[in-house]
Amino acid sequence: MISLDDVRAAARTLSGVAHRTPVLTSRTLDRRTGATVFCKAECYQRGGAFKFRGAYNRISSLSQAQRERGVGAFSSGNHAQAVALAASLLGARATIVMPEDTPKAKLEATREYGAEVVFYDRYSQDREAIGTALAGERGLTLVPPYEDDFVMAGQGTAALELIDEVGSLDTLLVPVGGGGLIAGSSTAAKGVLPDVRVLGVEPAVRDITKRSLEKGERVRVPVPQTIADGQQGDIPGAMTFEVNRRRVDDVALVTDEQILDAMTLLFERMKVVAEPSGASALAALLAGLVDVEGQRVGVVLSGGNVGIQRFCDLMRLHRSGAAG
Amino acid sequence: MISLDDVRAAARTLSGVAHRTPVLTSRTLDRRTGATVFCKAECYQRGGAFKFRGAYNRISSLSQAQRERGVGAFSSGNHAQAVALAASLLGARATIVMPEDTPKAKLEATREYGAEVVFYDRYSQDREAIGTALAGERGLTLVPPYEDDFVMAGQGTAALELIDEVGSLDTLLVPVGGGGLIAGSSTAAKGVLPDVRVLGVEPAVRDITKRSLEKGERVRVPVPQTIADGQQGDIPGAMTFEVNRRRVDDVALVTDEQILDAMTLLFERMKVVAEPSGASALAALLAGLVDVEGQRVGVVLSGGNVGIQRFCDLMRLHRSGAAG
Repeated sequence: MISLDDVRAAARTLSGVAHRTPVLTSRTLDRRTGATVFCKAECYQRGGAFKFRGAYNRISSLSQAQRERGVGAFSSGNHAQAVALAASLLGARATIVMPEDTPKAKLEATREYGAEVVFYDRYSQDREAIGTALAGERGLTLVPPYEDDFVMAGQGTAALELIDEVGSLDTLLVPVGGGGLIAGSSTAAKGVLPDVRVLGVEPAVRDITKRSLEKGERVRVPVPQTIADGQQGDIPGAMTFEVNRRRVDDVALVTDEQILDAMTLLFERMKVVAEPSGASALAALLAGLVDVEGQRVGVVLSGGNVGIQRFCDLMRLHRSGAAG
Repeated sequence: MISLDDVRAAARTLSGVAHRTPVLTSRTLDRRTGATVFCKAECYQRGGAFKFRGAYNRISSLSQAQRERGVGAFSSGNHAQAVALAASLLGARATIVMPEDTPKAKLEATREYGAEVVFYDRYSQDREAIGTALAGERGLTLVPPYEDDFVMAGQGTAALELIDEVGSLDTLLVPVGGGGLIAGSSTAAKGVLPDVRVLGVEPAVRDITKRSLEKGERVRVPVPQTIADGQQGDIPGAMTFEVNRRRVDDVALVTDEQILDAMTLLFERMKVVAEPSGASALAALLAGLVDVEGQRVGVVLSGGNVGIQRFCDLMRLHRSGAAG
């Protein structure tokens, strides 16, 4: 089980490599929530999301020989770019397994960081089988997106920086996908501030962490459609759940419409680009789903990787009232 | 003629009131330009643009009696919000004269800051006549958007902060509307760094400052359509031109397409929302209009007030290739 010391060690590893991302405040946000809100803007992290922190911390723990053989990952999203970038900085070759229909921008960004991309057909082939076979053939070390202590600890450094910068918090809100970001964040936050309340936020249609915490064991749900593409896994990670069942107080559930409201406020008032999953924790706050009256509240904006075309398509849906 | 001392005095007045906006860097930007680029992000200024600096510096110079009688401004844009906000912070009543067809978001933002809005019909009524009459009746002090030493000096504090934070620059690029931002910026920059090259950037279809500098006197042009709504005046200010003819080295001219390219890079790579005029200086750099190879380059991103609907409409135009 990771501890505050692991997050602190990760922070030392990441010092001078990861960006110390800005903490953003907004009078509009404070007025609308009745709280004093501090947004940790990981959309300004290298690679555009918090994922770089975990990937770099993991790859930096590898031996020289392991780095020379290379690292691998399966991802069509932010984790792919994070592994590609971290590997290139640490002199490791990276092989990323991506679906054939990965958006061009994400594909190009991954290749720009020097990674080799191996495609699979998501309708006929099994990603994990391909990745595992490839790792075996090439001797690659797989970098998981969340099921790893180094990854969780690295991802927790964002919360550690936030508290270091703003001081005490009453509540910390964190988006939950596989559970790695909130595992690291809750470990860091409760390590430094024993009384802080740590709340996860996930899409209402994919309430796997909420249900798993209530049941005391990991629950799998069929995943209906959500715009929050960073929060589409169907079951919490086994390792992350062991951390989160001890350190996460509750989970709030947001709709796509609430996420789009938050993305709108970020764009129009705070001039910040956030992707849907990246805005989900703020969405819960803005929608009034969490009682924070008079509190000091931290919110992790976890990423900003959304192209203009998709952003505008989502916003058209929002204005028409067709989002869920 | 304003001096570096005036900008320094303005910086003291604004200390703890204006945001010290972040300086953003991007490896993508450096690679694409062959320079080391520092973007001073005034889109994160209070009111969403650099205008707050000048308005606050001007209003803070007024006597208590003047503040009690109130201040006035004509503007449908960023200056309106800046005057409304600065007045409210300084205990002055503000009256803003706006066209009846002002976008709702700008109207609401101005009222949220506590200003009274007086409408006029832009097709049948003269804005200045209405404003001047109103100022006479009510004893208001008018806060001009650029034709004022306090305003110019206040606006120059952004460049002063930039140089204070990053050190020496070879070139500084600044958007030019009426010329107040670049008057203050060139005064600050050349005061601190005598050898810095200061370049203005304006829309190619509205090259008033470029032509005026070449001719040595203010030139008026009929203003064709441009998406850069902060740069639509038809003649440089008289006071700003007296500064700029001495302190501005040259002016680069950008097309709407080049501005939209810059807004795209800001959104997709840097996660920053900029309005068209706000991205114009970066546009000149990205389009290769200025020789900056190997240089340290400062760029002022002057504002970020663009609604999502307009942003997406502009980007649709961009993708279709229909922008100029």
